[in-house]
Amino acid sequence: MTSAPQPVTVLGLGNMGSALAAALLDRGHPVTVWNRTPQKAAPLTDRGARLAATPAEAIAASPLVIPCVLDYDTLYALLDGGTDSLSGRAVVNLTSGSPEQAHEALAWFRSHGADYLDGAIMTTPPGVGNPEVMFLYSGPREVFDAHRATLAALGDPLYLAADPGLASLYDAALLGLMWSTMTGWLHGAALVGAEKVTATAFTPVAIRWLSTVNSFLTRYAEQVDAARYPGDDATVDVQIATIDHLIHAAAARGLDTALPALLKSTMERAKAAGHGSDSFASVIEVLAETAPES
Amino acid sequence: MTSAPQPVTVLGLGNMGSALAAALLDRGHPVTVWNRTPQKAAPLTDRGARLAATPAEAIAASPLVIPCVLDYDTLYALLDGGTDSLSGRAVVNLTSGSPEQAHEALAWFRSHGADYLDGAIMTTPPGVGNPEVMFLYSGPREVFDAHRATLAALGDPLYLAADPGLASLYDAALLGLMWSTMTGWLHGAALVGAEKVTATAFTPVAIRWLSTVNSFLTRYAEQVDAARYPGDDATVDVQIATIDHLIHAAAARGLDTALPALLKSTMERAKAAGHGSDSFASVIEVLAETAPES
Ligand SMILES: NC(=O)c1ccc[n+]([C@@H]2O[C@H](COP(=O)([O-])OP(=O)(O)OC[C@H]3O[C@@H](n4cnc5c(N)ncnc54)[C@H](OP(=O)(O)O)[C@@H]3O)[C@@H](O)[C@H]2O)c1
Ligand SMILES: NC(=O)c1ccc[n+]([C@@H]2O[C@H](COP(=O)([O-])OP(=O)(O)OC[C@H]3O[C@@H](n4cnc5c(N)ncnc54)[C@H](OP(=O)(O)O)[C@@H]3O)[C@@H](O)[C@H]2O)c1
Repeated sequence: MTSAPQPVTVLGLGNMGSALAAALLDRGHPVTVWNRTPQKAAPLTDRGARLAATPAEAIAASPLVIPCVLDYDTLYALLDGGTDSLSGRAVVNLTSGSPEQAHEALAWFRSHGADYLDGAIMTTPPGVGNPEVMFLYSGPREVFDAHRATLAALGDPLYLAADPGLASLYDAALLGLMWSTMTGWLHGAALVGAEKVTATAFTPVAIRWLSTVNSFLTRYAEQVDAARYPGDDATVDVQIATIDHLIHAAAARGLDTALPALLKSTMERAKAAGHGSDSFASVIEVLAETAPES
Repeated sequence: MTSAPQPVTVLGLGNMGSALAAALLDRGHPVTVWNRTPQKAAPLTDRGARLAATPAEAIAASPLVIPCVLDYDTLYALLDGGTDSLSGRAVVNLTSGSPEQAHEALAWFRSHGADYLDGAIMTTPPGVGNPEVMFLYSGPREVFDAHRATLAALGDPLYLAADPGLASLYDAALLGLMWSTMTGWLHGAALVGAEKVTATAFTPVAIRWLSTVNSFLTRYAEQVDAARYPGDDATVDVQIATIDHLIHAAAARGLDTALPALLKSTMERAKAAGHGSDSFASVIEVLAETAPES
């Protein structure tokens, strides 16, 4: 026997908040919403969501409150004056922020009698509701356990740790990986694009290649944890020799070379630190220390 | 009815050449090898490979010759004096180089009576022989077709185009993507590592996240080809706001911030070019033009 879907409040109806509210409606939850610009609620109220007139009224409507606004300053500003309604609520905050902001928020919401969990959304709005996509959570385990079934409406809920800052830290680490990957991919698309290869032709090859790269990450993760980087597959020296082909090919086609130049200089710092015949994983040794002044 | 595996010669027995020769032996090909340092042939001759005394002798032994040495200069140097043996051979060159070097090599090998195909190996040596990994080829289609079955011993052979430079150009583009992805991943591992999360704990989450990122690449590839970048999922402005969390979190933990700083400035150039409310795909507009002097 499953219990009836619990009521949920979503604060903020930008691209992301609207997608969160829609996914909760899809699963049959009674949804109350609030947004500074109330017009954005129309597609949701058409589907049965209730539009509250104030944040306090929205918070009072549901035991679980999910804020998703631009940033933490925006969140505190909209709660100003409505903090009485927070007592007894669970707040699962999906607004992006820093680990430090998550720590402060946990203390602040507790001081107003609310439970707090910090979350990070690892997708764009079209992915919300897909059980394959990850939503990362950190904070008190019991708050996560109490709301896990509801949070599963949004994506696959992964609990990281009691430290409330860890979801934000993972978020930063994973977004950095995304920006690196997407910028490298766009640079590659521009490079082959100069020879009239379309991005839609290049991208399936790039995605297939990334699955091979995943196998390198798995192998190198063990090297990172052991702080030993045997170069028996491919050495930093071989990669430094090869990256010049990329830099020259890009320059010859009038492309920006700042990204490959930075990647090369990072490898050269690893070589200078004695890792020339080690694997690429040894590059972490120079990332984990502050760069020299240049 | 399948014909008997054809004889193949491999020139160069470094990490990669040794793996190529081993994969050919696995499929029952008679294999002749040559290496400057002949001792490296021992694991292969133990398995039935024939060690030639000179490059010319090695080339004469097989209709198909696969060089895989450090670079093109090394290749020309070792062929010096043995060019007579090339006539009537097919050379499938798996030495890494530039598109321009591939063009020159096709002309040079043709002038010595040899067919030529240029290739790029999209794996490290442990992946050689795995039918999932890609080997990219460009050059005359008929040379590829004549040797496709043999080349399938090394990995999945993908034919790109008659332009002999295209395999090298794809190689450069894909390696650039790899270095970007691996450096972003190492930076992320260092970031969560500062909070005692191991790389082996972080990496499965990172790999899962990359499969979500793949869905962004597929969506954005169409935007790149259309040169229109609707920001209805996530805008450049939202990403610029978020990357500061990464830069601050990294700096607070004593990590190098050169990579996220470069990614941010690239996004800011896209914003300055009018793409603030467009998707991340619009960043290609600033990569495809030479960076301003700084
Ligand atoms: N989009 C994504 O792919 C994605 C992915 C992961 C995480 N996130 C995070 O989700 C959060 C929301 O992102 P989004 O894409 O939905 O952004 P968005 O479309 O720009 O929406 C911003 C939201 O914040 C509200 N807001 C902004 N300033 C405000 C103020 N001064 N007072 C009250 N409300 C204010 C907006 O209200 P109005 O409608 O009245 O302007 C809107 O509800 C951000 O923290 C973002 O980093 C987004
Ligand atoms: N390793 C990879 O993951 C990988 C992936 C894709 C492509 N590749 C490409 O494959 C090629 C070989 O790479 P590798 O990893 O096998 O490198 P490696 O282990 O360093 O081997 C280099 C090879 O080149 C030979 N060589 C170097 N200088 C020479 C000279 N002056 N005269 C004659 N032979 C010389 C070496 O002979 P000795 O044994 O006598 O030194 C050895 O056979 C490179 O172009 C590389 O970019 C490698």
